[in-house]
Amino acid sequence: MSKKLTKRSEDYSKWYNELVVKADLAENSSVRGCMVIKPYGYAIWEKIQKELDSKFKETGHYNAYFPLFVPKSLFEAEEKNAKGFAKECAIVTHYRLKNDEDNPGKLKVDENSKLEEELIVRPTSEAIIWRTYKNWIQSYRDLPILMNQWANVVRWEMRTRLFLRTAEFLWQEGHTAHSTKDEAISEARLINDLYANFVTNFMAIPVIQGTKSESERFAGAEETYCIEALMQDGKALQAGTSHFLGQNFAKAFDVKFATKDGGLDHVWATSWGVSTRLMGALIMTHGDDNGLVLPPKLAPFQVVVVPIFKSDKDLSKIKSYLNDKIEVLKSMNISVKFDDRNTHSPGFKFNEYDLKGVPIRIAVGSRDIENKTIEIFRRDTSTKNIVSIEKLVEEIDSLIVDIQKNLHEKALKFRKENTFVTDDYEEFKKMISSGGFVLAHWDGSLDTEEKIKKETKATIRCIPEENSEEGKCIVSGKKSTKRVVFAKAY
Amino acid sequence: MSKKLTKRSEDYSKWYNELVVKADLAENSSVRGCMVIKPYGYAIWEKIQKELDSKFKETGHYNAYFPLFVPKSLFEAEEKNAKGFAKECAIVTHYRLKNDEDNPGKLKVDENSKLEEELIVRPTSEAIIWRTYKNWIQSYRDLPILMNQWANVVRWEMRTRLFLRTAEFLWQEGHTAHSTKDEAISEARLINDLYANFVTNFMAIPVIQGTKSESERFAGAEETYCIEALMQDGKALQAGTSHFLGQNFAKAFDVKFATKDGGLDHVWATSWGVSTRLMGALIMTHGDDNGLVLPPKLAPFQVVVVPIFKSDKDLSKIKSYLNDKIEVLKSMNISVKFDDRNTHSPGFKFNEYDLKGVPIRIAVGSRDIENKTIEIFRRDTSTKNIVSIEKLVEEIDSLIVDIQKNLHEKALKFRKENTFVTDDYEEFKKMISSGGFVLAHWDGSLDTEEKIKKETKATIRCIPEENSEEGKCIVSGKKSTKRVVFAKAY
Repeated sequence: MSKKLTKRSEDYSKWYNELVVKADLAENSSVRGCMVIKPYGYAIWEKIQKELDSKFKETGHYNAYFPLFVPKSLFEAEEKNAKGFAKECAIVTHYRLKNDEDNPGKLKVDENSKLEEELIVRPTSEAIIWRTYKNWIQSYRDLPILMNQWANVVRWEMRTRLFLRTAEFLWQEGHTAHSTKDEAISEARLINDLYANFVTNFMAIPVIQGTKSESERFAGAEETYCIEALMQDGKALQAGTSHFLGQNFAKAFDVKFATKDGGLDHVWATSWGVSTRLMGALIMTHGDDNGLVLPPKLAPFQVVVVPIFKSDKDLSKIKSYLNDKIEVLKSMNISVKFDDRNTHSPGFKFNEYDLKGVPIRIAVGSRDIENKTIEIFRRDTSTKNIVSIEKLVEEIDSLIVDIQKNLHEKALKFRKENTFVTDDYEEFKKMISSGGFVLAHWDGSLDTEEKIKKETKATIRCIPEENSEEGKCIVSGKKSTKRVVFAKAY
Repeated sequence: MSKKLTKRSEDYSKWYNELVVKADLAENSSVRGCMVIKPYGYAIWEKIQKELDSKFKETGHYNAYFPLFVPKSLFEAEEKNAKGFAKECAIVTHYRLKNDEDNPGKLKVDENSKLEEELIVRPTSEAIIWRTYKNWIQSYRDLPILMNQWANVVRWEMRTRLFLRTAEFLWQEGHTAHSTKDEAISEARLINDLYANFVTNFMAIPVIQGTKSESERFAGAEETYCIEALMQDGKALQAGTSHFLGQNFAKAFDVKFATKDGGLDHVWATSWGVSTRLMGALIMTHGDDNGLVLPPKLAPFQVVVVPIFKSDKDLSKIKSYLNDKIEVLKSMNISVKFDDRNTHSPGFKFNEYDLKGVPIRIAVGSRDIENKTIEIFRRDTSTKNIVSIEKLVEEIDSLIVDIQKNLHEKALKFRKENTFVTDDYEEFKKMISSGGFVLAHWDGSLDTEEKIKKETKATIRCIPEENSEEGKCIVSGKKSTKRVVFAKAY
């Protein structure tokens, strides 16, 4: 396979698909719509998991694990939620295969193993979890429950794309239970803030925070808080959502608690999640025509050393030239890979680590040893720099910080340059068609929202929390109290 | 629910089931055979995961993720493996629900959404992984592949028990690919050693290492290495297995590689796994009539502080009495929970932490403050000790080590006392019926193995690696070169 990528300007979508495969992040499997997450891609996902998991625990949450399957009778209990997922779910109907007499060596479904009740492979776990909470919650003393699980879920999407939309994906789903409405809303907001901080500071992806319009809400939620990012092709990507579920699930599953003052009330709920979709956001925010570009905080290895050598003797000289420095870097928690393969040329390796987005690449040959220098390449700007070997550690230490910062600034600058404001619907249409976030006044009605979607393919990505401003809806001319964010979206 | 457990001597099986639920480890869900792993149980599983994952990585393995579903045509490709799992698998046949016109608000399977090919929910992932490896492996340069995944799997067992045998369970499954038979065998052995070290040193559970007889091997393996532990009721529990798969899967999926000397050969394989079943081993090795007993290395919190107080003033005095010490303990990576709930009595808390197996419990009241003392309770021996507050840190630090060691020694002593040797089949039958490991000579034939199983319910748990000794089979009288380990098993 050629290691050369299609350019973003030629075909953005092709560029994305090629990058995911060539950078060894993921690939399609022999199961329709399901992906294989390859080791390098999975190592990035592990960094995401580890950081998020520690943030959840710091804020009082704990992990548990609930069943993969949801019996149909539970699945359908919360009607809105069920309706939202019914059209795209994998259904288990049998539990045994038997020999196929007509095809020796082959198997077929044993019709005698039909389940009495079908099982849905979880597309999300509110139903199974709230059925469980019913047994856990009797009194206000049992609240809050601040639970999270790391799991796989399945949504039978018809059109799939690696990381962005797959039939099976990995995620975390938080499901909390509270004794008051206010507490549940605070929890949903807390998590949306946590997501925003994580995506901004760890993944170097700027996001807009706010709420969804009613039509874009999670099925079964009363309010959906969200973070939205802008990709390089001008399309929006929903990076995380946190839902205030009101008492909908408590009512569907009859979960009541004895209040402090002796009453009986339904429990208040939230749910929230981010998924392997974040990998798509990462690629499309920072990637360039040479491949992935990783913020140092997400890089499986932050520094790669490519020795330029012809003989084993050359190689061992390079190793002893660098050994001490590498040890110092490792002691500073900077991860370093030394690529001493003699089966591949330095040029091949440079190309490979460009594709994989390794933040810093060091090249060393005999001449560097003579000159007491070293060549440092930073992936984010594709610039080389020759520094004295004595400055190596210091230089890398500051580069790690600088690259993380630079990537965020670059993405923020891109977003600013691609965020537009208009009060005119014709101008709005042009802006939307050329891509980016468009801030415009909206009258709050579903009709207007649908008309805009039909005519421009743009949806309301987010109703920002702050930013109040009097104005008139670009379509209906009716009164509006704030601008909302429109864009075409993934 | 009463917090009192059934005694082991009364009904071991009931004791186990009650302990799992009352110690907040897991519970049955509304999905047949699937469990909910509760936060406290999951926190123990996270300790297991973290330690194993770091050991896998230290030995050059990396994680990835493969699809949950296996298309039927892949599932049946390796015939022995398929046969081994065909009778207990969840089968997805449809991908959509629709409104049930006869039952408003209810849903039913949309018959128009039938899949062209059924999907099996993975009972194990050799098939899907080796289908993927086919694309990854062309040359010896692509080998070895040292992959692991943490995943859920489903085996439609008819009789289930929490942790020990559930329809869905969590595990890790390693799947490695090698260019030589020797290398693959070394890998399978390396992992079995790694498992043995982990279970012995981290979980404080002694194990016997060896191989399985042909009839007990994993479906599709040429050799199964295993570790076997002895539970308190005298039954064996298989704690982990590592399989040398030969070229079976490479042949089934046509995975060949160009060898160094220009030939073409099928790839050699291993697979290996441990699961949430280890939680069962933990409970049944160390638990007692008061509940779970945790080795400190597995405890979500190693020390719990129960303040004895009547007023907030009392409580704050106790806090300031202990604060410095707790900070010191935490800085030594000893985890401490301070239980300041005023909704539950100290007695209730003592009982709760006994049930949960917290290694060390500290109780402090006003008199302790006056006397500058503290009461320390160690869970493994159920003994109390009053020590000077100045000795607290030192005492706990040494207790942590001592409890871990003591639990292993106790379990080892139990195993020794319950391991028997015989050369007489009548005596063998008596020994087996009263429980324990029985070491006896076996002629190596399936017939003998089956006869013993039929007559005594004992299986060959393990053929120990060392320990060669000439002898005669207890059943057939034929020659044998070593004793093998028989037991009734979970």
